[in-house]
Amino acid sequence: MQIYKSPNADIKFNLEAFDYEGQVASIEEFADFDLDMAMSLLEEHSRFCEGELLPLNEKGDRQGLKFNSDDLSVTLPDGFKEAYDAYCEAGFGGLSFSPEYGGTGAPLTLSCVASEVLIATNKSFSMCPGLTTGLIEALEAHGSDELKERFLEKMITGEWTGTMCLTEPQCGTDLGLLTTKAIPEGDHYRLTGSKIWITFGEHNLSQNIVHLVLARLPDAPPGIKGISVFLVPKILDDGSMNGVTCGGLEHKMGIHASPTCVINMENSVGYLVGVPHKGMRAMFTMMNNARLNVGVEGLSLSDAAYQHALAFAKDRRQSRSLDPAKRDPDHAADNILVHPDVRRMLLNVKSTNEAMRGLITYIAINIDRSHHHADEAERQKADDIVALLTPIVKSYCTERGFENVSECMQVMGGAGFTQDWPVEQYLRDIRIALIYEGTNHIQALDLVGRKLPRHGGRLLQTFMGEVTALIRSSKDTPELAEFVSELKNRSKQLQQVTMSLAGRGMSDQEEAGAAASNYLNLFALTTLSYIWCRQLQHALTIGGAVQEAKFQTARYFFKMILPEADLYAKLAEVGKAPMMDFNVDYL
Amino acid sequence: MQIYKSPNADIKFNLEAFDYEGQVASIEEFADFDLDMAMSLLEEHSRFCEGELLPLNEKGDRQGLKFNSDDLSVTLPDGFKEAYDAYCEAGFGGLSFSPEYGGTGAPLTLSCVASEVLIATNKSFSMCPGLTTGLIEALEAHGSDELKERFLEKMITGEWTGTMCLTEPQCGTDLGLLTTKAIPEGDHYRLTGSKIWITFGEHNLSQNIVHLVLARLPDAPPGIKGISVFLVPKILDDGSMNGVTCGGLEHKMGIHASPTCVINMENSVGYLVGVPHKGMRAMFTMMNNARLNVGVEGLSLSDAAYQHALAFAKDRRQSRSLDPAKRDPDHAADNILVHPDVRRMLLNVKSTNEAMRGLITYIAINIDRSHHHADEAERQKADDIVALLTPIVKSYCTERGFENVSECMQVMGGAGFTQDWPVEQYLRDIRIALIYEGTNHIQALDLVGRKLPRHGGRLLQTFMGEVTALIRSSKDTPELAEFVSELKNRSKQLQQVTMSLAGRGMSDQEEAGAAASNYLNLFALTTLSYIWCRQLQHALTIGGAVQEAKFQTARYFFKMILPEADLYAKLAEVGKAPMMDFNVDYL
Repeated sequence: MQIYKSPNADIKFNLEAFDYEGQVASIEEFADFDLDMAMSLLEEHSRFCEGELLPLNEKGDRQGLKFNSDDLSVTLPDGFKEAYDAYCEAGFGGLSFSPEYGGTGAPLTLSCVASEVLIATNKSFSMCPGLTTGLIEALEAHGSDELKERFLEKMITGEWTGTMCLTEPQCGTDLGLLTTKAIPEGDHYRLTGSKIWITFGEHNLSQNIVHLVLARLPDAPPGIKGISVFLVPKILDDGSMNGVTCGGLEHKMGIHASPTCVINMENSVGYLVGVPHKGMRAMFTMMNNARLNVGVEGLSLSDAAYQHALAFAKDRRQSRSLDPAKRDPDHAADNILVHPDVRRMLLNVKSTNEAMRGLITYIAINIDRSHHHADEAERQKADDIVALLTPIVKSYCTERGFENVSECMQVMGGAGFTQDWPVEQYLRDIRIALIYEGTNHIQALDLVGRKLPRHGGRLLQTFMGEVTALIRSSKDTPELAEFVSELKNRSKQLQQVTMSLAGRGMSDQEEAGAAASNYLNLFALTTLSYIWCRQLQHALTIGGAVQEAKFQTARYFFKMILPEADLYAKLAEVGKAPMMDFNVDYL
Repeated sequence: MQIYKSPNADIKFNLEAFDYEGQVASIEEFADFDLDMAMSLLEEHSRFCEGELLPLNEKGDRQGLKFNSDDLSVTLPDGFKEAYDAYCEAGFGGLSFSPEYGGTGAPLTLSCVASEVLIATNKSFSMCPGLTTGLIEALEAHGSDELKERFLEKMITGEWTGTMCLTEPQCGTDLGLLTTKAIPEGDHYRLTGSKIWITFGEHNLSQNIVHLVLARLPDAPPGIKGISVFLVPKILDDGSMNGVTCGGLEHKMGIHASPTCVINMENSVGYLVGVPHKGMRAMFTMMNNARLNVGVEGLSLSDAAYQHALAFAKDRRQSRSLDPAKRDPDHAADNILVHPDVRRMLLNVKSTNEAMRGLITYIAINIDRSHHHADEAERQKADDIVALLTPIVKSYCTERGFENVSECMQVMGGAGFTQDWPVEQYLRDIRIALIYEGTNHIQALDLVGRKLPRHGGRLLQTFMGEVTALIRSSKDTPELAEFVSELKNRSKQLQQVTMSLAGRGMSDQEEAGAAASNYLNLFALTTLSYIWCRQLQHALTIGGAVQEAKFQTARYFFKMILPEADLYAKLAEVGKAPMMDFNVDYL
């Protein structure tokens, strides 16, 4: 039983709360995309997702993929090809891309916010346009005009799809170890090597598949500084095959309709993107937005699971209220929403989901500002926030998303463990999000090792500037006092732990590594308390039930979720000894 | 790739640490089962599980069950029938049951400790003897001599298997709502009704299946006080079918080789167990040991996952050590065990697994004492501890077990998400343990609402007496000081929160309900710090590598796990307002 509905009202609330009109629609090139237009585009997209993709979600999981060993092709579950054609026909894949190449030209904020719904209705399906988007971004930022002419339009319209070919058997996290070779030949290169875990590496949705491949030139320095990036299409311009073949599919716990391929290249033609040996730059362009998108996956399935758990709870009667006054005399048992613990579980999920949705909107808006704001100082500020919060959104939202889906299953009892409901599929589908696009600990190292020290700590200062501005702007709003004073404490706590960590990490990087994961979660919770305050500021301007609902949900978050920050702060301060003094022979 | 090895050395360590010889083998009827004998029985059992059951674990998951709609039979995966026959042939199912009925007569401690290995090698398989064990215990405690004569031997030898038929579509947690009817007819009853989620309700392993069924007599009072228990065999003594049929199987996220059946009874002959309308008593006899066993499931799969994650980690090289001095000059990357976060994840799992194994051993030993100790006061003390800690072991070990399996998957990265390793199966298989045999919140309510108030708080006093005795006995052992002083603080914290909760819960049960789940986790962590101190006391008597390993692991637990207690304490003290003042219309 699948009952997901797109959370359009809360999406709109967040676009307002984080001032989409003032921050994004006011930018000249987005003048056509005011909030009304934005919501009408998003609602059209939601209708499509609910109508076309949601019905395929369970079917895709059960039927799975077919690898045809005779021609090494991969067939997606029934209905996926038709849905993909309709998706392209509607132009959803090109929503935020340049009209010059067939896109709609809307702000990235809208495609980011739309992706919540796309993923929630069909995570496996969403990964195909998701990967293609990353490739388009890398090409836009680093490709030559000639490559753009040849590839961009086909990919923006969805006629061709894209992949990211990074991982090899001996290297996932550590890309410096990769061995795929690229030999120059005239205006192109010849690539040979094997890649694994290539999402949508082979499938029957599009005419052609374009692989963005990390490889080494013959004169490449060793390690991460000798990696170049190439575009390697499955089919060449003259219609001939390019020697790129699928060696098989992984069998996975979830995302059964998303092909995870071994991709073999044998003397395949490839085109260099950007500068030789500087491929990691293009890769990170692609990766950064991909990481935000993976964070969205956590929210998507958490909200989808919540909607099912809530529907189940509303319908289920079991046991009596602990408060005799609340017992329903017309029934032998009360609705389970009378039980404090059922509410606790649902509110754990709801109060974090709404905060994560706010965080994602806030980051997305800052991405548009970082690219398009007229003022350079504003662009830089926005970019600081995006760079700082991207590892946080990837790691925290996937970890919490996984926990939340599990919590939703708990609300449903045995029913949640059966395939009668999609929650068990969500749990299987979301688990990989903690791993791919850089494991969650890699995000933590990115935060601690790269983002905090960058520009002498400017990124954190920029974000703290936003926090301080909010605290100041709310000092005459007594309704916010209880929340803002807590935000103040939490940001002080974060700064203290940051200082202490910086001190220890400077002289001993293992200290930073030992603390990083807990530190990231501390940072995430502090950030979410800021996000909640922003949402409450906006809720006050609306009043009525929206205001009450937001205040009650926020209160739950501040009382029952935010105290986790103390635990993370404490663990981040323990130091490396319990790990590093441990004799590995005793493991 | 399945590489599980039974943790015999740590099992033996715990039997010693919790004084199996002094506490159990010293009881007259267990004189034949000294530690040497115990370990030789356990090792034989381990060899069987590793040799016969482990190879079927993955196969069972992939092949799954077959429901034959023509004759309503259920066929288990290939090899399960042969393995079951061999299991019975070896007498493992009857290990702790009376020799009078074909059992071995060993202490329950041994079957409990053995079940860790049974479950770890094949959780689906383990559920068949697991359920049968529960039924035997209920029958031993509450059945008439005539029923015992007719049923016990066949079940102890495994010739017949057993089920627990509680749940109906309208009632899981709230058994008071059940409607299955039993009509008296001569020396027996006729039962009609439908039960759902009946584990091993139908299968091809044994000749006969005996259902322990909750039902209502015609004159039953409403609710929980009108429930009686019946034995309902699938096949009657004269070989005729008893009208008990399987209506179908659930399709589940995991335990794919464990049939979860709809069981329909149509005028089926049943025999009353115990007293009319007092069925819940027999049910709880069965349920209590079942709950301990479900707690063991958490440990089992957590340790199995750990062994795989550790093997993966030992073999995997990726990235460089953060400490230049630790870099391996012979390789382009270092073994991932150099990374503090990989150690953190593995130690999160190891340090809780070893504590949970100690806790289970401690409870199991107390079960034997509660049944067999010569002194009534000692029996009562032991029973207090068992009653108090059973909800804790069920809830905490399953929750932590699930988290631990997920943590192990994280250590393995993408590999852990594929079916190349069994960890993804463990994650799917373990999740149900948080739900069945009373959801984890039901355990928390049992702890707070029944076990704490029972006999004026005597159960907690008994346990605190044990804690105090340990603190006293270690006051001249400086090696233990850091741990024992922490145990002192934690037990003070637990007592403070308990007092506060008792005060609030007395006047308002919703306050108790709102705090119960967090309170249970607080209690669990305090208990595990006691368990660790007991293990360390024993480790000191061994010395060498065992002592070092236990001390380093305990140090990790006290520094990095135990601080969670502060979070639980804080959340347990928040009060019900964030949940109960929340307007459900806003959910």
